Amino acid sequence: MPAEIYQHHPVTQPHTRVRVFGLADRSLPVCHTSNHQLLLRAASSTSGTNSAEIAFKFGKQTKKTGPGYENTIRENVQRAKEEMVALQSTHPALKPTLAIIQAGEDDCLLEINKKMAGKVGLNLTQICLPKECTEDEIIEEVLKLNDDPRVHGVYFHLPPAFLTSPVLNTLNPEKDIDCVSDLNMGRLVRGDTSQGFTPPIANAVMELLARNDAPLEGKTVMVIGGEGPLGVALLCLMQRGGVVVHNVHRDSASLKKQVMGADAVVLLGAEQIDVPSTWLRPGAALIDCGSSYLTEDHELASSRGSGVGPLTAVLRMQNVVRSSSRWAREQQYRPWNLRSLKLQPLSPVPSDIEISRAQTPKSVDQLAQEIGLLQEETEAYGRNKAKVRLSLLDRLSEQPDGKYVLVAGITPTPLGEGKSTVTIGLVQALSAHLKFNSFACLRQPSQGPTFGVKGGAAGGGYAQVIPMEEFNLHLTGDIHAITAANNLVAAAIDARMLHEATQTDKALYSRLVPSVNGVRRFSPIQISRLNRLGVNETDPSALTPQEISSFVRLDLDPTKITWQRVVDTNDRFLRKITVGQASTEKGRTRETQFDIAVASEIMAILALTDGLGDMKARLGRMVVGSSCSGQPVTADDLGVSGALAVLMKDAIKPTLMQTLEGTPVFVHAGPFANIAHGNSSVLADKLALKLVGEDGFVVTEAGFGADIGMEKFFNIKCRASGLRPNVVVLVATVRALKMHGGGPNVSAGSPLPKEYIDENLSLVAGGCSSNLKKQIQIAHLFGVPVVVALNVFKTDTQAEIALVCQMAKESGASDAVPCHHWERVAVAHQETSIVEKIRTIAQKVYGADDIMLSAEAQVKIDYYNQQGYGKLPICMAKTHLSLSHMPEKKGVPTGFTLPIRDVRASIGAGFIYPLVGTMSTMPGLPTRPCFYDIDLDPVTEEITGLF
Amino acid sequence: MPAEIYQHHPVTQPHTRVRVFGLADRSLPVCHTSNHQLLLRAASSTSGTNSAEIAFKFGKQTKKTGPGYENTIRENVQRAKEEMVALQSTHPALKPTLAIIQAGEDDCLLEINKKMAGKVGLNLTQICLPKECTEDEIIEEVLKLNDDPRVHGVYFHLPPAFLTSPVLNTLNPEKDIDCVSDLNMGRLVRGDTSQGFTPPIANAVMELLARNDAPLEGKTVMVIGGEGPLGVALLCLMQRGGVVVHNVHRDSASLKKQVMGADAVVLLGAEQIDVPSTWLRPGAALIDCGSSYLTEDHELASSRGSGVGPLTAVLRMQNVVRSSSRWAREQQYRPWNLRSLKLQPLSPVPSDIEISRAQTPKSVDQLAQEIGLLQEETEAYGRNKAKVRLSLLDRLSEQPDGKYVLVAGITPTPLGEGKSTVTIGLVQALSAHLKFNSFACLRQPSQGPTFGVKGGAAGGGYAQVIPMEEFNLHLTGDIHAITAANNLVAAAIDARMLHEATQTDKALYSRLVPSVNGVRRFSPIQISRLNRLGVNETDPSALTPQEISSFVRLDLDPTKITWQRVVDTNDRFLRKITVGQASTEKGRTRETQFDIAVASEIMAILALTDGLGDMKARLGRMVVGSSCSGQPVTADDLGVSGALAVLMKDAIKPTLMQTLEGTPVFVHAGPFANIAHGNSSVLADKLALKLVGEDGFVVTEAGFGADIGMEKFFNIKCRASGLRPNVVVLVATVRALKMHGGGPNVSAGSPLPKEYIDENLSLVAGGCSSNLKKQIQIAHLFGVPVVVALNVFKTDTQAEIALVCQMAKESGASDAVPCHHWERVAVAHQETSIVEKIRTIAQKVYGADDIMLSAEAQVKIDYYNQQGYGKLPICMAKTHLSLSHMPEKKGVPTGFTLPIRDVRASIGAGFIYPLVGTMSTMPGLPTRPCFYDIDLDPVTEEITGLF
Repeated sequence: MPAEIYQHHPVTQPHTRVRVFGLADRSLPVCHTSNHQLLLRAASSTSGTNSAEIAFKFGKQTKKTGPGYENTIRENVQRAKEEMVALQSTHPALKPTLAIIQAGEDDCLLEINKKMAGKVGLNLTQICLPKECTEDEIIEEVLKLNDDPRVHGVYFHLPPAFLTSPVLNTLNPEKDIDCVSDLNMGRLVRGDTSQGFTPPIANAVMELLARNDAPLEGKTVMVIGGEGPLGVALLCLMQRGGVVVHNVHRDSASLKKQVMGADAVVLLGAEQIDVPSTWLRPGAALIDCGSSYLTEDHELASSRGSGVGPLTAVLRMQNVVRSSSRWAREQQYRPWNLRSLKLQPLSPVPSDIEISRAQTPKSVDQLAQEIGLLQEETEAYGRNKAKVRLSLLDRLSEQPDGKYVLVAGITPTPLGEGKSTVTIGLVQALSAHLKFNSFACLRQPSQGPTFGVKGGAAGGGYAQVIPMEEFNLHLTGDIHAITAANNLVAAAIDARMLHEATQTDKALYSRLVPSVNGVRRFSPIQISRLNRLGVNETDPSALTPQEISSFVRLDLDPTKITWQRVVDTNDRFLRKITVGQASTEKGRTRETQFDIAVASEIMAILALTDGLGDMKARLGRMVVGSSCSGQPVTADDLGVSGALAVLMKDAIKPTLMQTLEGTPVFVHAGPFANIAHGNSSVLADKLALKLVGEDGFVVTEAGFGADIGMEKFFNIKCRASGLRPNVVVLVATVRALKMHGGGPNVSAGSPLPKEYIDENLSLVAGGCSSNLKKQIQIAHLFGVPVVVALNVFKTDTQAEIALVCQMAKESGASDAVPCHHWERVAVAHQETSIVEKIRTIAQKVYGADDIMLSAEAQVKIDYYNQQGYGKLPICMAKTHLSLSHMPEKKGVPTGFTLPIRDVRASIGAGFIYPLVGTMSTMPGLPTRPCFYDIDLDPVTEEITGLF
Repeated sequence: MPAEIYQHHPVTQPHTRVRVFGLADRSLPVCHTSNHQLLLRAASSTSGTNSAEIAFKFGKQTKKTGPGYENTIRENVQRAKEEMVALQSTHPALKPTLAIIQAGEDDCLLEINKKMAGKVGLNLTQICLPKECTEDEIIEEVLKLNDDPRVHGVYFHLPPAFLTSPVLNTLNPEKDIDCVSDLNMGRLVRGDTSQGFTPPIANAVMELLARNDAPLEGKTVMVIGGEGPLGVALLCLMQRGGVVVHNVHRDSASLKKQVMGADAVVLLGAEQIDVPSTWLRPGAALIDCGSSYLTEDHELASSRGSGVGPLTAVLRMQNVVRSSSRWAREQQYRPWNLRSLKLQPLSPVPSDIEISRAQTPKSVDQLAQEIGLLQEETEAYGRNKAKVRLSLLDRLSEQPDGKYVLVAGITPTPLGEGKSTVTIGLVQALSAHLKFNSFACLRQPSQGPTFGVKGGAAGGGYAQVIPMEEFNLHLTGDIHAITAANNLVAAAIDARMLHEATQTDKALYSRLVPSVNGVRRFSPIQISRLNRLGVNETDPSALTPQEISSFVRLDLDPTKITWQRVVDTNDRFLRKITVGQASTEKGRTRETQFDIAVASEIMAILALTDGLGDMKARLGRMVVGSSCSGQPVTADDLGVSGALAVLMKDAIKPTLMQTLEGTPVFVHAGPFANIAHGNSSVLADKLALKLVGEDGFVVTEAGFGADIGMEKFFNIKCRASGLRPNVVVLVATVRALKMHGGGPNVSAGSPLPKEYIDENLSLVAGGCSSNLKKQIQIAHLFGVPVVVALNVFKTDTQAEIALVCQMAKESGASDAVPCHHWERVAVAHQETSIVEKIRTIAQKVYGADDIMLSAEAQVKIDYYNQQGYGKLPICMAKTHLSLSHMPEKKGVPTGFTLPIRDVRASIGAGFIYPLVGTMSTMPGLPTRPCFYDIDLDPVTEEITGLF
């Protein structure tokens, strides 16, 4: 009979039976009815509103042939079915589902409800607890149903003693289709119809009243015995319908007189009340809800309820359909109801951390709710940060993406030109002021520089991510997870080389494939290695000695290890080290190095992946070195890829934070912009594009100048994501333009030369016609329109600002530029050789005459081609301080040849990275690191000196 | 006039005026009253219940001289004052406080409320928003008041248009003293009197009714115009008081007749209703709440409200006092209402991770609430973990501690004897079954071994911490924070040596104390270094060249650096390395090593500290090496101590998790048990002892055998905490006892010899009379009674079990042993020299004949004595596999001399650690690390192969 079965509970709970009924259409049970008296009964309950017996008597004098009770039921079934059809036409995957929690076997009343659910087309889940279950057990089931997104309504079919306040108020009010929770009762009383539900029994009375005497407005209805929640609910519904309600006590002296004046009489309350039909005036109805068996005795109630109750049941099912519709509506795009935090700008502008601390962020739970995230889709990390689950992508898969805005910059001075600040300022303007759904997607900063050289990455002034200290420190631990994963690979490499060097094939094999309880078995990771070796045997005892040898020996060439350890600290003494010098390592020393953690290939993978499965595959493909015979050795060969995925399982979820005005920000991934591609994650952008909906905006930032950050955004990140931006916002400053126009050197810590403080239009013009123009052209190479955003400093003059804006437009900046170059450049880039791809970027993007490969670079390229990596995109590791490889060359350098010192590969992340000129992967600390100023007040817990 | 002022808002919000009034006792305003008509008015509001005008008319015929309205007010003021006195006698520090949110200036109605608050003795906080404020601004203020523990009730004195559902429902229902939230309205309707509040206006009507006609039960009251929330509230109160309520519409034909039959008539609703006094029967009261000015016009309401309203106001103040009492009651010790998770044990017992996954943990928010944590005291990290704030210690400072139970073990086999499992099983039994408030305090495990050799630290079987994968991986990032802090110190050391070697005094000084905007200033950290150097000058330009030189030069001796880098990975190749080999480091290479992260001194500090201030001081005191002239150099000298405190500010908060049965667990700190003291944190124990209250239990675990773990618990952890355990639970197994009794070798990975599978009473007896007896004696050395917990394995026979229990008792195990040795041993230990302390432990605890110091150890001891560290306690770094230094010597080894190879110091943590025999601080990976089995299902996100 069940059309569909799913296991709602783990099998360890044998007493819980669960059945799910499909959309079977069954006929209604035969009811004991007459023209004059119809009974419907529901489970009794001390809470009241979902339980009573209703007797509906038409006045004797009239309406003998009026439309009857069956019609009311039929019409309501029809209405519910129509709502179901409408709902499923827009949401074909949605299966509205009612869950019933019962103690003991089905009874007649339950049968009625189940059949009515089938009639309407609902799915049904029954949680059958034993009769002697405890309150805790019921609560545990309720909590599971609360969390189960497949369930839209819950009906407690339980003895009254179990319907305690903790049970009723544990139920999520959004699933409380019987209005048993305090919150929904309060909503009903206060008249909030957008949330909560009307109790089916009160609704049934209203239906019967309306059937007898529509329209109800202005009619007089006498309620006798309206004590308790049911009476209150009915009172509210009638008053809201314009009914003149006389709530009269059964002992009233004027009872008869009042009955005679009423258009209808409703009998509530537990005691039998005798109102003779002769008292009723012609045409008046008597609805008897006198639930004489509203007792503690559930048995009695159910034995007497046999064969009745369809009207209340169908109205309960209507509530389930309504609950499902609301749920579906919640999923759809809508303008956010975002509470923006008010800014109170002060002059002069205080320090970034003072501004950050003066604002009270809203709780991240609140923010998540405002932007349409479901409770089960977020995981709070403290008050101000939450991870967002990737299941969101499935839920919103049908929703069109928002507009995608890329913020890039011209070649910067060493002081930076405020790209993050523009990014954040832009979303604050769009969200908090223009009321567009908007998201900023930012990189997580490395903690290394936080304690070395001043400067956070949370924006600045009144355009910040808050709280900025949480943004800059630890965040939700993603970089720590990357460090742990990266260093596990490193430890596995060296340990493996040691073990291979000191053990025979047989000893290695017996340790790698040990006998556990007498059985030897390959792990899945080992089977995939066997497959790569061309061995299809899965029985460990069946391998040939030759197969065993090739299986157990990765035979790593110690001089060809490309994997390095990482720390998230600026520790220059780890740039080149020798490891393995303890006697326990038996002299197997090796030169290697540490990189800063954000330079790890695992960070690049995090930024480029589109899901757990893809991430795991990429982690497994990472090449850590090559064997003595020249074969690449991967993380999967080391047997470590599953463990890496486990270490990274939380890091894959983007972190939600907020701007100073309370608008949403995703912080996720922060690959080193020089070595890797320097962009925030594909997943954060994708989640944000779904969350903002089609009229919304997602503003994402590319690292460094447009020549590196933007180029890599298009050629690497967009290739991985399949997304393309609608517009590029190119950030420029008068300061940087003057530098490119020939101004003197700018360096951190030294005072700015006066050219940068006084007006100097010719330097500005020089910068615009060189670097700015070139950067606009680079964006146009990819076929995307450019809007130049000039980040104004207080030293900029009106004439300088006007000049930049004019020259930017003359150079092609606009929001209406035709964009047809995208596919062409990308495809050309994709299909040529590694060398040609490097040359294309060097010439078309950087403006070099040509490239010059070192011998080492050429050897590596040959090797990568031979290993089949030639098709991977290129990720140039180049200084960001010039379009060329020479940081001191500003403007648009020409007449230079780009030297390619070496070429490396991030096979898991999926790119080749040529090293241009001299690049370090490990920053150092200055003489006076900024940690001197960083302190914590142990009483207030406030941080001082951080930016 | 204000008795106390505090700044509720940051100064950046200039439009917000806040005043706080103290306990000034002011007389009531003169009211316009007569015998026959008393008016009280409250602010109008669309929400209704906190607003109306009440006119109270006594029937003309009688009661002309009956007890009047003033008496009602006076009695209620008196009642509120008495409740205040009672409350403040038990909670002298508590200041019950009402917050008023108003838009615009004070009006007469507000004056009445403020004066009534003063009369009752409440503190008052006024939030004065501008008249033209927005809903968002009001909500922002409400959120702040929700979070402010000093505020117990909130009164909205706002125009009706502002009293929107979002505003009313943002208010925390616990502070909703006017019953304006949906939840409190629902509670009122359902009759939950333990939570929520009755609306003061409805309460006022009840008071007046009772004043006129007590007792009310059985009396007939007619309510005319009872629409809306106020009508519902009044209806519920009257019905609950046994009143026969006739809720009659104003247009009822039988109005007069019904009025004549009523004992009292209440007029509600916005419209004027004329009920002539002549209709009233003798003695009947007419209470007119007809709020003719319940309009949108707030001005009108307040101008007409002058001089009236005291009864509603005093009842509002009563609600504030009640709210404060509830709050105070919440703070007090009480048995937890803990919902335990039901176990469904299966046979055979599945794997640990299967058991863990089969259970659905309750949300950590729920658990926190059940054990009496306030919402503002926790910070969730995902669904299953939360950090607990240390402010809890202040809040519960008056509460007596619970019982303190230490779980220690006999000398284990390499397989472990189930100490964690006993710890967790014990709290599950105490909490979930015996219903005692109980907490387990556990160490956070290092992630290194998780991927190396099998075995988690979350307990096992049906005594586990869940979810065990979260327990074993990352947790809340504390070890990552330690790694970051530890390595920042290391980077600072090497960078500093480089900078000193390559710069003149002058260059160093100008970089260390740079001119910022023309001003040179020492940072606080630099000033404390100057103080240590004996320089009291704070003007950078006033230092002598000699002072500058000693200030800028730490002059670290590269061969005397004791600080090592750490990783939380089993990476044996880092046991000895050479750093600084890149050309940028100019040949300043140095041999050093990495330790496992949990061996960092910062971890030891985390475990021993008692608060932020203490932690910061200890971090600053850490000695990282010595200068060429032999002076110790500290983290504070490096300028890095503030940054370390910042990195560790979240790690200092213990993490709350739960057992398989839903009982609370703190996981906090995990210092390496060999090198450091191997105990969980002092802070977690202290928080837990307050949370369980005086009848509760805190079970904490000491690392390894009683000879190391327990000895260090007493001599190091207890010394830091000032706590002492009430009992020691000593965990033993038949397997370990047989080993000590002379059984063959036990090693991981090899099958157990048959002696351990078959009954062998003589081996058991041998173990009991040697190792078990000795361990009991060690506990007795510290004056604490011992209960032996025999962890039973399925191979143990009844005879073996009985024998262990008998011999344990014969050896002194009992829960009633007199405990007078504690102070003696501790003090003796404290006051002797380093060598004597080492000898005391070696002889009294380990049973050695004597100790033998290496030359290096002797040199170090001399140095530490000379530097003033001789008074620090001793933390022996010794194998846990034997009482002696020789892992192969089982039972109670005698006749040996303990060799002290070296002596090191953790000055910040506060102990000296002698190295006994050979100890490694960096574990390695086996040939087949368990990461081979660890995998992540990318669809279900389930982890496989983890234990």
